[in-house]
Amino acid sequence: MTTKLTDLETPSLLIDKGRLIANIGRMTAATEKRGISQRPHLKSAKSVDVAKLIVGKNGSGATVSTLFEAEEFAKVGITDLLYSNAIVPQKFKRAAALVTDGVDLKVVVDNVDMADRLQKFCKETGVSFSVLIELDMDGHRSGVRPEDTDRLLAVAAILSEGGLLSGVMAHAGKSYALTDAAAIEDLAREEEAAALQAAAHLRNAGYRCDIVSVGSTPTALADIECLGATEMRAGTCMFFDLVQRGVGVCTFDDIAMSVLTTVNGVNRETNRIITDSGWMSLSRDRGTSKQKEDFFYGQVCLEDGTVLPDLVVLDTQQDHGIIGYRAGIEKTVPEIELGTLLRILPNHVCATAAQHTKYFVVDENNEVEAIWPRISD
Amino acid sequence: MTTKLTDLETPSLLIDKGRLIANIGRMTAATEKRGISQRPHLKSAKSVDVAKLIVGKNGSGATVSTLFEAEEFAKVGITDLLYSNAIVPQKFKRAAALVTDGVDLKVVVDNVDMADRLQKFCKETGVSFSVLIELDMDGHRSGVRPEDTDRLLAVAAILSEGGLLSGVMAHAGKSYALTDAAAIEDLAREEEAAALQAAAHLRNAGYRCDIVSVGSTPTALADIECLGATEMRAGTCMFFDLVQRGVGVCTFDDIAMSVLTTVNGVNRETNRIITDSGWMSLSRDRGTSKQKEDFFYGQVCLEDGTVLPDLVVLDTQQDHGIIGYRAGIEKTVPEIELGTLLRILPNHVCATAAQHTKYFVVDENNEVEAIWPRISD
Repeated sequence: MTTKLTDLETPSLLIDKGRLIANIGRMTAATEKRGISQRPHLKSAKSVDVAKLIVGKNGSGATVSTLFEAEEFAKVGITDLLYSNAIVPQKFKRAAALVTDGVDLKVVVDNVDMADRLQKFCKETGVSFSVLIELDMDGHRSGVRPEDTDRLLAVAAILSEGGLLSGVMAHAGKSYALTDAAAIEDLAREEEAAALQAAAHLRNAGYRCDIVSVGSTPTALADIECLGATEMRAGTCMFFDLVQRGVGVCTFDDIAMSVLTTVNGVNRETNRIITDSGWMSLSRDRGTSKQKEDFFYGQVCLEDGTVLPDLVVLDTQQDHGIIGYRAGIEKTVPEIELGTLLRILPNHVCATAAQHTKYFVVDENNEVEAIWPRISD
Repeated sequence: MTTKLTDLETPSLLIDKGRLIANIGRMTAATEKRGISQRPHLKSAKSVDVAKLIVGKNGSGATVSTLFEAEEFAKVGITDLLYSNAIVPQKFKRAAALVTDGVDLKVVVDNVDMADRLQKFCKETGVSFSVLIELDMDGHRSGVRPEDTDRLLAVAAILSEGGLLSGVMAHAGKSYALTDAAAIEDLAREEEAAALQAAAHLRNAGYRCDIVSVGSTPTALADIECLGATEMRAGTCMFFDLVQRGVGVCTFDDIAMSVLTTVNGVNRETNRIITDSGWMSLSRDRGTSKQKEDFFYGQVCLEDGTVLPDLVVLDTQQDHGIIGYRAGIEKTVPEIELGTLLRILPNHVCATAAQHTKYFVVDENNEVEAIWPRISD
């Protein structure tokens, strides 16, 4: 039983199921070729239905960004989980409850203080976590610098004492600023080499380091040999978006997520089309603003997904989108009837999806075959 | 039965109840003094509990931005509602169901085509709406330009034929770019005068125009005489935010909404504090970026709300915030223990609140006295 797009309320978040499955196939093939298993990051999808399509494909587990996600995935039997944000003491108890319930929960720390607190918590409660040490690849957030061997070993010593240490985790965050395949391949090698160097320091000092976790969407798809990392965490590449197109790892036709919107005004004086999708449904993300091609708040497509070149959402209010041509394009906006449906391709799928509570899953006939809830608390 | 902030999971969205009530008092007093009733916009709050605190204070109804909000407010007896986004044909049925259920639903159109379709729908179904004609005060979105009398009267003629016409609605959107009380007062007068001019055109042509609706947060608080408008729709001023502080209509101490976050890292090398609140909880809104004082992703406060001058969330990732001093401030970030709670004042409450499903309501002792769900579908 399918529903036509014209029967949906707008704005609605659509997933093109064919593209999603093709993207998952591409991720899986890339990691298989490289000889690295995948632990897909589910923070973009936040969906049990999406997880079921990918978890287990060249790997056994997944990565999450909140403990709530971990709880929801555990309920459907996805129990090999990496909670990839540095854990804080307020979250120890909730994380421990997952372990007690049988979840193989891996958590992340990057400093002596937190390692010490976690180790003491484990000792007191008798609950044990697998812990990864976060590495800082780009110097702008958290993590141990790979060359800071003293700190790495100090954290490892504490974790190891409690029997908690399992490995290291690196994230090539600066890959999102690249646009060139060769540079992305170089960075992928650099990310993996740095993680392996840290792993070698640990092993040489007599510590365990079973897991060497790497990943970012651009580097996940890089066509390189595996140097020895054990898993790849990328997740956005299930959906892709305009930012990833700017990075050069996908085309418009790979982008599996879009926002369905209704035209509710055409202003001939200002040469603008007005819709019912503002930042409430598209998000405030302006991820393409620093890229070569700026899509403002998104690329405009017809209801069937046909891209309308250079027509973008120039501005948003809470529940209004303002569509027009980019500066420099001297064209009149298309003749369009009020009530017409359009699709907007997002800058950044994680941010756009976060504005919605469910996905409408569209089949090859552009009909809705399912509704998938998103995990949100 | 209260909960301490230290017992909350972070990130969590807090409402300072004392400030909320004081702000509602200020809005109500300002509209009473001006001699205009209020129809508060509930798109920022999206909360039945907040609605109960304000609806009925110098006015009988509220403004909503989605039909889902209208449905939820109607369930608790708030039935005098203005749906202030231009209606589209896909939403006629759902809106009609509200009317059939006894909601006094006012809807908005700005063009002949939609007026015609709505009038036909009403004729066919026997359901009647009160319709306001949207006026365009600043030329960048939708609405009939107040001086475009031909279009105004053409829309009115169609609506009037169906017995639908109730009035006009104006929104001084450009007030958000102002920073000077006198200029805001001038614009408030200009907004009201334009709305009244359109109303006069309608009345002179023999049409009904009972409702003359105006409003924006800056102009709502302007200390001016009433020229004859019947209602004020402002809503953000219940909470205020850093953008409104930049406009000059509130101080830090009036801002009633904040995001509670936990420090999970201090990076001495980069002079940054890392937290667990990224854009997922703060939003991607950068509303102060064009103001004189830029707060990046938010102003940092201690757990008790004490503002830490010049310390802001400089950058965000999905679930990480990166705190530091603004460029030009040569200071070392405070000594701070991992696990410490901080509060972040938001740029734009509507956008930040949209990232959450509930409010934690904080009393004068900084304890949580209630949890209020947000309306989200």
